[in-house]
Amino acid sequence: MAERLSAEARKSALKELPGWTDTSGRDAIARTFTFRDFNEAFGFMARAALVAEKNDHQPEWRNVYKTVEVVLATHDAGGVTALDIDLAKAMNAIARQLGVA
Amino acid sequence: MAERLSAEARKSALKELPGWTDTSGRDAIARTFTFRDFNEAFGFMARAALVAEKNDHQPEWRNVYKTVEVVLATHDAGGVTALDIDLAKAMNAIARQLGVA
Repeated sequence: MAERLSAEARKSALKELPGWTDTSGRDAIARTFTFRDFNEAFGFMARAALVAEKNDHQPEWRNVYKTVEVVLATHDAGGVTALDIDLAKAMNAIARQLGVA
Repeated sequence: MAERLSAEARKSALKELPGWTDTSGRDAIARTFTFRDFNEAFGFMARAALVAEKNDHQPEWRNVYKTVEVVLATHDAGGVTALDIDLAKAMNAIARQLGVA
C-alpha cells in the first residue's frame, strides 16, 4: 500500500508540480485547470480517467464548462501518497499537450 | 434562446424525472447518480458529455469514484429551462441502461 508522504516529501514533490497546491483543511493536493472550452476540458478528463483507472487511483474532480477542479488524496492512507503525485504529474502532462501550462 | 421555466412547468417536468430535485439556494435542478465503480461512472459521464456537446448545453458535475453529482441550470436564462430538462432526461436514460434506475 502507498504510504502517506511526509510534509518534507510532499513539499519537495509540489515544487515539481506547477499549479498544484496543498488544500486547506484536509491532507490533499489540488489544482484547477482551465481549458479553451468544454471539448478540451472533457478531453482532458477522458485521458486522465484512463490513467487513473490503469493505476487504480481515481481523482475527485468537478467540471464546469471549461474548468476542471481536481483534488487528489489517497483515502486508505489518510493523505497524499506517491499515487497522487504520479496522477498529478500525468494530468499536468496531458494539460500541457492541450496547451495549458 | 431557451426561456426560464415557470415554477409550475418545472414542477411538472420534475415529476417525469426520477431522482431529480430542486436545489436549495439557487434556481437549478440536481441529481446524484451512484454507479458500481469508476468505470461505470466515467462511462456515464462520457456518454452524457457527447449529448451535452451536441446540444451545446453543458452540466456542472462532480465525480468521486463511483458517484456523479450533477447540477443543471441555464446560465443565460438565470434558471432552469427546457435545455436542462432535456439533458436530465438523457442522463436518466443513460443511467438506466447502466442499471441505475
